[in-house]
Amino acid sequence: MKRAIQLASRARGMTSPNPMVGALLVKNGRVVTEDYHRKAGTPHAEALAIEKAGVKAASSTLYVSLEPCCHTDKRTPPCTKAIIRAGIKRVIVAMRDPNPKVSGKGIKELEAAGIEVVTGVLEEEARRLNEAYIKYIRTKKPFVVLKVAMTLDGKIATQEGQSKWITGEKSRHMVHRLRSGVDAVMTAIGTVKADDPQLTARIRGGRDPRRIVIDPELQIPLNSRILRVPPETIIVAKETGHPDPERTAKINYIESLGGSILFFKGQLELNWLMERLGEMQITSLMIEGGSSLNAHALEDGIVDKVLFFIAPKIIGGRESYPSVGGKTSRSLESAYRLKDITVRRLGEDILLSGYL
Amino acid sequence: MKRAIQLASRARGMTSPNPMVGALLVKNGRVVTEDYHRKAGTPHAEALAIEKAGVKAASSTLYVSLEPCCHTDKRTPPCTKAIIRAGIKRVIVAMRDPNPKVSGKGIKELEAAGIEVVTGVLEEEARRLNEAYIKYIRTKKPFVVLKVAMTLDGKIATQEGQSKWITGEKSRHMVHRLRSGVDAVMTAIGTVKADDPQLTARIRGGRDPRRIVIDPELQIPLNSRILRVPPETIIVAKETGHPDPERTAKINYIESLGGSILFFKGQLELNWLMERLGEMQITSLMIEGGSSLNAHALEDGIVDKVLFFIAPKIIGGRESYPSVGGKTSRSLESAYRLKDITVRRLGEDILLSGYL
Repeated sequence: MKRAIQLASRARGMTSPNPMVGALLVKNGRVVTEDYHRKAGTPHAEALAIEKAGVKAASSTLYVSLEPCCHTDKRTPPCTKAIIRAGIKRVIVAMRDPNPKVSGKGIKELEAAGIEVVTGVLEEEARRLNEAYIKYIRTKKPFVVLKVAMTLDGKIATQEGQSKWITGEKSRHMVHRLRSGVDAVMTAIGTVKADDPQLTARIRGGRDPRRIVIDPELQIPLNSRILRVPPETIIVAKETGHPDPERTAKINYIESLGGSILFFKGQLELNWLMERLGEMQITSLMIEGGSSLNAHALEDGIVDKVLFFIAPKIIGGRESYPSVGGKTSRSLESAYRLKDITVRRLGEDILLSGYL
Repeated sequence: MKRAIQLASRARGMTSPNPMVGALLVKNGRVVTEDYHRKAGTPHAEALAIEKAGVKAASSTLYVSLEPCCHTDKRTPPCTKAIIRAGIKRVIVAMRDPNPKVSGKGIKELEAAGIEVVTGVLEEEARRLNEAYIKYIRTKKPFVVLKVAMTLDGKIATQEGQSKWITGEKSRHMVHRLRSGVDAVMTAIGTVKADDPQLTARIRGGRDPRRIVIDPELQIPLNSRILRVPPETIIVAKETGHPDPERTAKINYIESLGGSILFFKGQLELNWLMERLGEMQITSLMIEGGSSLNAHALEDGIVDKVLFFIAPKIIGGRESYPSVGGKTSRSLESAYRLKDITVRRLGEDILLSGYL
């Protein structure tokens, strides 16, 4: 199962809105075939492994990191049928598919066909692997990771706004890898104006995420790299409710660059925005913003996971930018509490991750 | 040697202004005797081990975590003489004594007497053990540890000043152990007014450090626990230069409680203060202050080591108190950089330590 999860993770960032899945066929203690799901619309891991095995699939055991699908309302045929047809005698499943169209029904169908099914093997690892998929399939909203790169004293920029570079090369490489693994990266206009970032995944084999810029007043400079460098950038702007030719011209220009505008009314509710992004099949989102956006995201309760890259530096300053700003602080009793904390070293830096 | 260092560390916080030292006598691969220095003015580790061994010390090997002393201007006789007299044939030393009165002379004396001496065994560990002693003997100023207890987003208090408790029980226990290991703890009047702390070592076998409060305007409330609870508290106040009967009355009252006042002129230079504390034989000092004192200590360059206790909580807030404040922040190029970073878990918290 460890191998199945490992195989699955090869397609990180590629399968959305589908989960990552890996599968192995084992017979007499030997691996017959193994494979993984590569991309939505292409064959599932089980189907690939079974097809490659041919007649050898008969009487084998299938290890699969997610419950095989049983529904037909998609481009690929249900895997349960292929498993039964191939004469597989045992199926070991890491976790049930949280998709209500499957969830337990795939397992039942296999059992009804006389196949022995074992579930819950390395379930936690399998859940971590597909944490974004699980959130999305249940809520139709993206799994949100808040990324912060800060000094040891909790600052993300000096009082003049300097933030390049707080963390070291290894941390920055890791951020590019993380971008490659999410459907979209979100920032705010302040960061765009201060740093003019691209927010792309500049690593070998990297897949660039879509970019989302929160920019209520549509202040984005038209020569911003985020508008000039593909892929698509979505600007989240406030609906003014009155005609404004200059604004219209700016919108047209942004659209001509391949960008799009998402309008909100009144105050921006990030939960509302997450629903809209979910509708666009954005299943996972990394926030790379400033003090205010970080605070806003936590206040609106959209954050699932945090990644704090901590550099062994201290800059001090009452007026430098804190990792999480906002008008007010929480009391210690009502602080956002993180669980399942992990700590790792990244060169000189420390990466601390946790779940809300 | 590992054992010698371990033995030495049993007297942590007890030997000041002396170093911690452990010693073993080994013969035919077996430990004959072992001991450690307990307190300034009492026998040294080597002397204790040799005395306990009696005639068995002859032809043995001595392992000692610090170069044996050779000078006579103190209450205990020089250890070199005892080693030679006992007929010890080899001496293994972790590190030279940085005290210029010894530094290499002890080793030379032993070698001149025909004893084989090996130095530098587990030297780094031995240096860490006596880092405070090394700094003090060289500079006559205390080794300064800056302790910070903060949320993951780098805050030490909410905007209302609430700081109890950011970190968990294990971290707080560790702080009490650390207090027990230093000669003094320093804070500022803001912390005294906000939290009314005792800054004592409330653990079994704990030794309370002296307390130092930076309080230029002598605002300390006379019912503060830091004045009411022993041991001595030193108030660092500004000399006014003009008679002030109310101030004089306050000073007299503080002195009647066992406290003392150290006056400075003009602006407080922490380096000047460290010299004064060194003169009072304070060899090690832990700073447990607020945003401003932490910044001031770093700005004045008095900090040797930092200990950041990080709780897995986020409180946010532009106006909450940052771990390191101060009027201005450093640029990223001129940030204080930490080296020899270590990370450990303390219950739910993370303890990150490093050297300036």
